[in-house]
Amino acid sequence: MKSIKVGILGLGTVGGGTANVLQRNAAEITRRAGRDIEVIIASVRDLTRERRCDCSSLHLTTDPAEVVNHPDVDIVVELIGGETQAKDLVLQAIDNGKHVVTANKALIALHGNEIFAAAQEEGVSVLFEAAVAGGISIIKSIREGMAGNRIDLVAGIINGTGNFILTEMRDKGRPFAEVLTEAQALGYAEADPTFDVEGIDAAHKLTILASIAFGIPLQFENVYTEGISELSLTDVAYAEELGYRIKHLGIAKADASGVELRVHPTLIPAKRLIANVNGVMNAVMVRGDAVGNTLHYGAGAGAEPTASAVVADIVDVARTITADPHSRVPHLAFQPDALANLPIKAQDEFKCAYYLRFEVNDVAGVMSQLSAQFADQDISIEAITQKEPQPGDDFVSVIFITQRTLEGRVDRAIKRIEAMQDVRCKTVKIRVEHLN
Amino acid sequence: MKSIKVGILGLGTVGGGTANVLQRNAAEITRRAGRDIEVIIASVRDLTRERRCDCSSLHLTTDPAEVVNHPDVDIVVELIGGETQAKDLVLQAIDNGKHVVTANKALIALHGNEIFAAAQEEGVSVLFEAAVAGGISIIKSIREGMAGNRIDLVAGIINGTGNFILTEMRDKGRPFAEVLTEAQALGYAEADPTFDVEGIDAAHKLTILASIAFGIPLQFENVYTEGISELSLTDVAYAEELGYRIKHLGIAKADASGVELRVHPTLIPAKRLIANVNGVMNAVMVRGDAVGNTLHYGAGAGAEPTASAVVADIVDVARTITADPHSRVPHLAFQPDALANLPIKAQDEFKCAYYLRFEVNDVAGVMSQLSAQFADQDISIEAITQKEPQPGDDFVSVIFITQRTLEGRVDRAIKRIEAMQDVRCKTVKIRVEHLN
Repeated sequence: MKSIKVGILGLGTVGGGTANVLQRNAAEITRRAGRDIEVIIASVRDLTRERRCDCSSLHLTTDPAEVVNHPDVDIVVELIGGETQAKDLVLQAIDNGKHVVTANKALIALHGNEIFAAAQEEGVSVLFEAAVAGGISIIKSIREGMAGNRIDLVAGIINGTGNFILTEMRDKGRPFAEVLTEAQALGYAEADPTFDVEGIDAAHKLTILASIAFGIPLQFENVYTEGISELSLTDVAYAEELGYRIKHLGIAKADASGVELRVHPTLIPAKRLIANVNGVMNAVMVRGDAVGNTLHYGAGAGAEPTASAVVADIVDVARTITADPHSRVPHLAFQPDALANLPIKAQDEFKCAYYLRFEVNDVAGVMSQLSAQFADQDISIEAITQKEPQPGDDFVSVIFITQRTLEGRVDRAIKRIEAMQDVRCKTVKIRVEHLN
Repeated sequence: MKSIKVGILGLGTVGGGTANVLQRNAAEITRRAGRDIEVIIASVRDLTRERRCDCSSLHLTTDPAEVVNHPDVDIVVELIGGETQAKDLVLQAIDNGKHVVTANKALIALHGNEIFAAAQEEGVSVLFEAAVAGGISIIKSIREGMAGNRIDLVAGIINGTGNFILTEMRDKGRPFAEVLTEAQALGYAEADPTFDVEGIDAAHKLTILASIAFGIPLQFENVYTEGISELSLTDVAYAEELGYRIKHLGIAKADASGVELRVHPTLIPAKRLIANVNGVMNAVMVRGDAVGNTLHYGAGAGAEPTASAVVADIVDVARTITADPHSRVPHLAFQPDALANLPIKAQDEFKCAYYLRFEVNDVAGVMSQLSAQFADQDISIEAITQKEPQPGDDFVSVIFITQRTLEGRVDRAIKRIEAMQDVRCKTVKIRVEHLN
């Protein structure tokens, strides 16, 4: 059968990794795909730079338009990142009738609706497995493997940098800022770490997961996002004592009243498998009404794990390149005309349990005053712990873990508690998910 | 678009579950598949029996041939189990140009090569996601999600009954026979538990996983199989003390010298995620050269999780029903003419670490005599523990954990040790896998 010809935009970490995997495993890939897959052209920023891959058999250009307009290219692989130039190039490739494979989560989260509409119009595929959780193939598992289910929960550790930092904080008792500096030195975190530590990267990925799980349009703007930069070692340690572990999760929940889309630090029972996913690894839990709980674990980033997903997408395109475009798996798992605009819940409508830490004067009666505020808001309390004052402190920490309730109620209780005379300091509020 | 018409062979637990999921999630499934999927006929053994599903809209028959020969049926779903009648019906369905979906691991493991050849000839699909690890979609993850990888290891907890028994033995210190009786009462184990506890069911599943991971023909007859019925609480407890947990694993390994296919109790470091998969849950670890280690976790059996996989396969067929038959994903992940007859290693060529427990007379010098036998066979020892004699015993237990070595060497050392005067009893040998 005719070979499939690939053009790559960007030969950096992931681009180089993709070229390497395609070359190294060429025999294995052809045995699976039933055709050869060859990279014939790639665009780079600087022709003189040393490459991570053998480029002897492909044409290098500094002009990305040459890749998307190349008449022999069947599949354009977009690995330049960012969303402005990437979007233009992807749309041009689609317009030229090329299939597209991309690892670009920002591009899909922010412009996916437009890109998929264009692809649908042209009858080409745009695959993006590498955009979420690298080599885990979570997109395929949800989109195809769980096609018989009504999915009501996706909860994932989908940013390796953040998970590395939280793991170090917990295991070694090192504060956030110190671990971040190490993560930057190790190459796990960017010089500007905002996207990773403030949850933006995770929010891009959650946007994609929620869309394919629930059949809703991509809507990054509706994701509530909280990072890990404010997290203190005190709460990491208290969570452990209470039998929980703090993970930075992307959570999408659907029920009859709407959808919650949120990214934030979360207490999870320490015995859950996902609570034991450490270092830079990723894991996504998905719950369907037929299958129950599933967990999908693997490397979420890095040259080769990401390349693994890119190559799987290339093979998928290769296998279906002659198929009726209307019989392919829909980009967002659901047929484009069957996406539903489910209501997205505001923050005060979130429903979960809460870990709340107050610093209060060590005087009689304060605990009962606090408890009264929760009762007033109809919030049931699961557990209360009062900590001895630390040496030098003239206050005590009081920790409440609530039962599942509405966040609006919790925030009202906090507001009243913070107005009380014996309460010292800004409350720490961390959401709790039992994931059972 | 024209609806897809399904005929089901067998409306028992899984058949009833499949009909229920297709009915309950009909709207969701149509939104994904782009067409309605309707069950129009099902064969049952006894028309008068009470059903687990609403059968008002489908034709029930006691004649399975009516299902496979029905002119309107697009997909035959085989859920009667066993391998004689099931094979005949599946081959007849293929001959009639029907696509087939089955949950029957024995059928695929024993007759898959013949069935897939017939399907290939006829240009139809035979999908079998439900045959391994229920709703986890491990077949799809390996076959498609890891298509860019050279896979060298698959290790899975793929029998829920066995894992339930091992979990109870460890958590509650209850002996094998007692837990088995409970598992039978709970419906987790059959009246004749041989398939589950002697590893035959796991060997069927491992046969399938190894084939799609390495691109080798199905070869159940070459799987080395050991069950859990001989496992004692003593070793379960000693393994824990040494930082390991005993799981019943299906393991397929490939290296330059050939393939190991084996099912047996295995010590795994307790901190591995897969060591913490408990109860009836399944999990499969797959390692690829690009992606690294991945883990896929979920329910491996039961009406609805199995139905989840069956329905996913039905949707897959529905989506590609108009596709060029030669562009579909190959049944065994690799193109039929690209399967390789890799050499399968004999037991004495297995390579792993070993937990060995000897009962010896408590006399001076016995430990050094044992150690000398290992040195003689060039086996390095990772750890040695000698246990105090139990009350009433006049012997002591000595446990060796070896480093990775050939099983032939270990067996030679054991044979010589068992011939020694101060060694009391049959040696316990359990394989150790570090899975890192």
